[in-house]
Amino acid sequence: MSLKTPSQSIAKFRPPSAAVIEQFTAIVGPAHALTDPDAQQPFLQELRGQFVGKTALVLRPGTVVEVCQIMALAHTHNIAVVPQSGNTGLVGGQIPYETGAEIVLSLARLNKVRALDGAGNVMICEAGVTLQDAQNAAQQAGRLFALSLPSRGSCCIGGNLATNAGGINVLSYGNARAQVLGLEVVLADGRLWNGLRALKKDNTGYDLKDLFIGSEGTLGIITAATLKLVAQPKEQATALVALDDLGKVLPFFTNLQDSAGPALTAFELMARRCLDFVTAHGADMHDPFDAPHPWTVLIELSGLSDDGAAAQHLERALAQAFELDLIKDAAFATSPRQSAALWALRESISELQKPEGGSIKHDISVPISAIATFITRANKLVETLCPGARPVPFGHFGDGNIHYNISQPKTMEKDAFMAMRDDISDAVHELVVELGGSISAEHGIGRLKRRQLPSVKSDVEMDMMRAIKQALDPSGILNPGKLL
Amino acid sequence: MSLKTPSQSIAKFRPPSAAVIEQFTAIVGPAHALTDPDAQQPFLQELRGQFVGKTALVLRPGTVVEVCQIMALAHTHNIAVVPQSGNTGLVGGQIPYETGAEIVLSLARLNKVRALDGAGNVMICEAGVTLQDAQNAAQQAGRLFALSLPSRGSCCIGGNLATNAGGINVLSYGNARAQVLGLEVVLADGRLWNGLRALKKDNTGYDLKDLFIGSEGTLGIITAATLKLVAQPKEQATALVALDDLGKVLPFFTNLQDSAGPALTAFELMARRCLDFVTAHGADMHDPFDAPHPWTVLIELSGLSDDGAAAQHLERALAQAFELDLIKDAAFATSPRQSAALWALRESISELQKPEGGSIKHDISVPISAIATFITRANKLVETLCPGARPVPFGHFGDGNIHYNISQPKTMEKDAFMAMRDDISDAVHELVVELGGSISAEHGIGRLKRRQLPSVKSDVEMDMMRAIKQALDPSGILNPGKLL
Repeated sequence: MSLKTPSQSIAKFRPPSAAVIEQFTAIVGPAHALTDPDAQQPFLQELRGQFVGKTALVLRPGTVVEVCQIMALAHTHNIAVVPQSGNTGLVGGQIPYETGAEIVLSLARLNKVRALDGAGNVMICEAGVTLQDAQNAAQQAGRLFALSLPSRGSCCIGGNLATNAGGINVLSYGNARAQVLGLEVVLADGRLWNGLRALKKDNTGYDLKDLFIGSEGTLGIITAATLKLVAQPKEQATALVALDDLGKVLPFFTNLQDSAGPALTAFELMARRCLDFVTAHGADMHDPFDAPHPWTVLIELSGLSDDGAAAQHLERALAQAFELDLIKDAAFATSPRQSAALWALRESISELQKPEGGSIKHDISVPISAIATFITRANKLVETLCPGARPVPFGHFGDGNIHYNISQPKTMEKDAFMAMRDDISDAVHELVVELGGSISAEHGIGRLKRRQLPSVKSDVEMDMMRAIKQALDPSGILNPGKLL
Repeated sequence: MSLKTPSQSIAKFRPPSAAVIEQFTAIVGPAHALTDPDAQQPFLQELRGQFVGKTALVLRPGTVVEVCQIMALAHTHNIAVVPQSGNTGLVGGQIPYETGAEIVLSLARLNKVRALDGAGNVMICEAGVTLQDAQNAAQQAGRLFALSLPSRGSCCIGGNLATNAGGINVLSYGNARAQVLGLEVVLADGRLWNGLRALKKDNTGYDLKDLFIGSEGTLGIITAATLKLVAQPKEQATALVALDDLGKVLPFFTNLQDSAGPALTAFELMARRCLDFVTAHGADMHDPFDAPHPWTVLIELSGLSDDGAAAQHLERALAQAFELDLIKDAAFATSPRQSAALWALRESISELQKPEGGSIKHDISVPISAIATFITRANKLVETLCPGARPVPFGHFGDGNIHYNISQPKTMEKDAFMAMRDDISDAVHELVVELGGSISAEHGIGRLKRRQLPSVKSDVEMDMMRAIKQALDPSGILNPGKLL
C-alpha cells in the first residue's frame, strides 16, 4: 500500500551506530533512552492503528538543554529525528517509518507550566504539558485557555501547536495558532530560538512563530510556548435545533452570528444519520425531537456575566429564526445535565459510527458559503462510486470544517469497502479543491495525506515549502517524509 | 547620518540600462513608466520627509500579469525593486535608497475589489485598493472590514498587509494579519502564487501567508488578498475616564475586558500632557473634566444590537470601577457628536504635539502587565538623558502598544534636542527589550529601525530570517536594505 512505502526523503537515512546510541543515551541517562522494543512500543503506534513504526532509540529528554544536545548530536551524525508529544495525531506525523532509521524524540517529560500571569492573560507551557493540564492551570488562575479537543487528557501543547490543532472552540476563539503569542524552538542543528514573547503586537521582522506552528515537526522542535488566556464565560446556553433544508443552515448561521458575535461559541452541524447512529448504538442517547429532522445543529452561546442574557439571547434568536422559516424546532437545555446530553450526541458520532462497519473519513474545509454544495455533491459522488454507502457528514459549520465520514453499505464486506478508500477519497478531495477548500482542515498532512499534497497545491507553493524546509533544515533530519 | 548610508545589500545593485528600461516600459506602456523626475517625485518621498530616494524608473502596472512580467525581467537583469502602494509607511520601507539603483513598482493601479461575498464574510481586494475603499465596499454589503487606521483614505491594502498594520481596532478584531484568509503574491522570479483561499481552517502545509504578511516587500509582492468581514456593530458607547494612578489602569482594563469581552473595542490611554497639548493647540478641543487628572482612558464598547445594552454595560462597569476606587471620574458621550469630540482628543495628539517643538517618537509594545513599569522607568531615563524633555505617552493599552513620544524641553533648541535622538531611542529601546517588548509594535522596521534590529534579536533569529530571505529571494532584489 502506497502509504507504507518509505519515501525518498527517509530512504537516505541510516540508524545510529551503537557508539552514537551511547552518546545519545549519555545525554538523557539510561532510564530515558529506550532501546527495548516493549518499552518503545507505546511510541511506535498510533490511535487508529494505521501506522506502526520501528526505531533503534526513543529518547525522553527532561530539559530543553537536553533537546538541544540531542539535535546537535543528530545534526553531527545525520540522524533523522521524529518529534512526538502526546501521540494522539491522526495522520501519522508522530510515528517513525518502518525502516527503523529514525530515532523518536519524546517531549513528554517537558511538562512544566513555567509561568502564569493572570492579569497579563498569558502563560508559558512546555511542549509535554497535556492540554487538560494547561486548561486546568488557566482555570485555577480564574482564566480560560480556549483551545479544546476531545483528546485533551492525553494530547500535549507541543503536538497541538505543531499541528495547529482546531477543535470545538475555534468558531469564537480561533485555532491553536490564534492562542500563541510566542514560541521556544530547538532548530535542526541544536540551536535554541527563544521566541517566548508575550506581545499582542510586534512588527519586527518575519513571522517565524507561525511558520513553526502547523509545520508538523519538520522545521524545528517546539519546546515551549507563550499562550494567550481569556476571561472565563460565566454562563452558557445550549440548544439543539432542527432544520428541514441544508440550504437554510447558512442564513440561519449568519443571522445568529450577526446578533451574537463571538458569544456564539458553537454551531455544530449534524446530518440525520449522525443522530440515527448515536441513538441506535449509544446508551442514554436520545433524539430530543418527536419527529426525525434531516438536519440538526447544536448551538452554544456563552456569556461573560451570569445574568441569564445568553439564554435570553438564544431564545430570542431562535424565535426569530422560526418566524423566518429557517428552523423547524428547537430543544433548549435547561440544566447542565441536559446540555451535557446534547453535547454527548455530537461528541459520540465518531465512536458510535463504528458498529455500522467500515468508515472512510475526511477532515475537509470549504468556504462556508460552499458547505451545502459540497455535501450535496459529495453525497452524489459517493452514491455513484459505491451505491448504498452512507455518508455521515457533521462538523464545525461556522469554520467551514466538515468531517465527511462515510459508513459502508449495509450489505457490503468491510474489506471490499475499505479497498475503495483511495478512489473515494480522491474524488471527495477533488471536489474539495474545485470548491476552493482544504483536504486537511484540522488534522494536518503527516504521512496519511502526503501523497495527495502535490495534487492540491500548485508547483509554486510546493517549491516555496521545499525552499523553506531547505533553509531551516538543510540536511532534512527533522521528521523526514512527513508533510513534504 | 547612519540612516542614510546605503547598506551592503543595496550597494551591489546597478540601475537598469536604457535597453532594460525600454523593456520594462514595454510591459506597462509609456504612460505608466515614469522617468521624469517631477512625475517620479510623489513616489520618492514619504510623509515625515525623513527619506528621499532616487530612481531611474517608476513602474505602474495595471494587471497582476504585468507585475509578474516586471519581476521576471528584474530577475533576469538583477534589478532591485521597491514595492509601494499608498506610500504612507512611517519607517521608509517603501522609498528607494539614494543610490538610484532600484526601480519603484507602484501597486496603485491594481485597485479593484475583485469579489465580495457578504454571506460568506469574505472579499478579495487588490493591493492598490485604499483601506477606505475596502471599508466602503464591505459597508455597502452590510458588513464590516475591521482594519482601520487614521491614514485610511490613502494607505492601501497591499501596504497594510506588507507591514501588518495595526490601528485603532486591534483590541477586539486583531491586526492586519488577523483579517487575512488568503494572499496572491508575485515572487522574486516573477512566478505567481495564488493563495487566495477563503478558509478559516486549512492545515495543509506551511503557513506561507503569514510569512509574507509583515515582511515589508522583502519576500514577495502582495498583489491581492482574501479579507475577512464581520458583522457591523449596531451601537457604540463612548466615555472618557479619569484615573489618578498609572498602576490602576491594568486592573481597570482587566475588569472591563472580563465583563465586556470582544465588545470592548477601544481602550486608549493618554497621559496628562496629551490633553494639555491638544487643548492648548486645537480648536474646539476641551478636557471634559473640571480638574486635571494625571491619566485618562478613552473607552468604546460596541454592541451588535441597538437596544442600548452597550451603554448600559459601560455605565454599570464604570460605576463598579468607581466603587473599587480604580477610577476617579468619567464623561459619557451622549451623542455621536460628543463621541466624535472625545475621539478627536485622542486622534489629534500626534498633530497637536507639533507646536511644542521637536519630538522623538517610539512605537513600542510590552506585555500589558509591564506597561506601567515601562512608562515610569522610561520617563526617568528621559529625564536623566535630557532634563526638561517632556514625554507624551499614549496608545493602545489593551494591545500593550504605547506611542512613547517625547517633546523637547521648552527652553532647548529643536536641533540640539533632535541630535539626541539616537541616544534617547537606544536607551528607550534597551528598556523595551529588557521588559520583553518590541521596538516596533505597528510600523515595522523598514529602513528607520534596521540598524537596531540585530541588537534586539538573537543571532539565531537573525540567521533564520536571513535563511528565509535567501530561500525566497536568492538574488536579494526585493526591497534590499529594508528590514534585514
